Amino acid sequence: MFEGVVQDLVDELGTLPGIGPKSAQRIAFHLLDRDEESVRRLADVLIEVKEKVRFCEICGGISETEICRICSDARRSNDIICVVEESKDVFAIERLREFRGRYHVLGGAIDPIGGVGPDDLRISELMQRIAKGETDEVILALDPNIEGEATSSYLARMLGAQDVKVTRLASGLPVGGDLDYADEMTLGRAFLGRRSI
Amino acid sequence: MFEGVVQDLVDELGTLPGIGPKSAQRIAFHLLDRDEESVRRLADVLIEVKEKVRFCEICGGISETEICRICSDARRSNDIICVVEESKDVFAIERLREFRGRYHVLGGAIDPIGGVGPDDLRISELMQRIAKGETDEVILALDPNIEGEATSSYLARMLGAQDVKVTRLASGLPVGGDLDYADEMTLGRAFLGRRSI
Repeated sequence: MFEGVVQDLVDELGTLPGIGPKSAQRIAFHLLDRDEESVRRLADVLIEVKEKVRFCEICGGISETEICRICSDARRSNDIICVVEESKDVFAIERLREFRGRYHVLGGAIDPIGGVGPDDLRISELMQRIAKGETDEVILALDPNIEGEATSSYLARMLGAQDVKVTRLASGLPVGGDLDYADEMTLGRAFLGRRSI
Repeated sequence: MFEGVVQDLVDELGTLPGIGPKSAQRIAFHLLDRDEESVRRLADVLIEVKEKVRFCEICGGISETEICRICSDARRSNDIICVVEESKDVFAIERLREFRGRYHVLGGAIDPIGGVGPDDLRISELMQRIAKGETDEVILALDPNIEGEATSSYLARMLGAQDVKVTRLASGLPVGGDLDYADEMTLGRAFLGRRSI
């Protein structure tokens, strides 16, 4: 429909998550209207991010340095390691400003259908960290879905042989939600996990 | 929250229309996961689009050449000029594959509050095109909102002195919609514009 390079831009934008053909078109026209300087800034940061960002050698999270900010922060405690699937989960937990331990990013979850096995994840790296004996507790903070649960079970089994406490995040009703909107799984978990008040 | 260049990328993505902070973050992490090659392709097309795309000297629509594909297409008729606000409207109408005349892109609509007057739009260029005497009909295909209506009225008055037929797109119920979901303005217009069957 569009001419050459405009169509190329719409196509490229359409490959981004959550950007359908309509949004891609809208963003493309917006960029056509914008001054060259600001579009170049976006292009530059795209290149820069791929050049600069790598994975922390300890936790596997994204970092601009060999060891990430969190792993190199001496004020944080080595006692607790919080295991997550992806780097973005680290940021989600950091936003709470409550957890002061370390992280370990697995790089995904066990997913037999998607062809992801335990060996494709950073599990041996986690075991090596724990083998150092500095860790008291491992918090499994994986996604509350089938893959996350399977991975948590696997890790709990692996960690059972180690001298560490293994915990997982609570399942239950999301705060601010309506009880009758909760799915059966969530409501079931909320019942199982009920606490005395 | 994020480190240096990742935050820069989230910020830049957040300036795009329809991309809130959450989506910006999601797209940024997606780009971090993608191979460098494909991210570079997106960066390149952003630069290219700003370098290559300009405005057609006749219709004012976007083009990669001095005169756009539509204006230079000898098979299209000079009898009818369809006036639109933006380049993207040209593409919307072209998608119908019905209109075989020419276009004129105003570059916006009269909007006193936003500080856009008739002199900020490509109205004199339209008058010059019509003064050539090749045009039989001018279709005003502006947005069906206050600014579009004001601009249509203004253009209709200006064109009244010329020997051309001036038409506008029909207002009414959108096809596939529910009558009781239509706003009062739309329903009112649908009544006024009722046709015998």
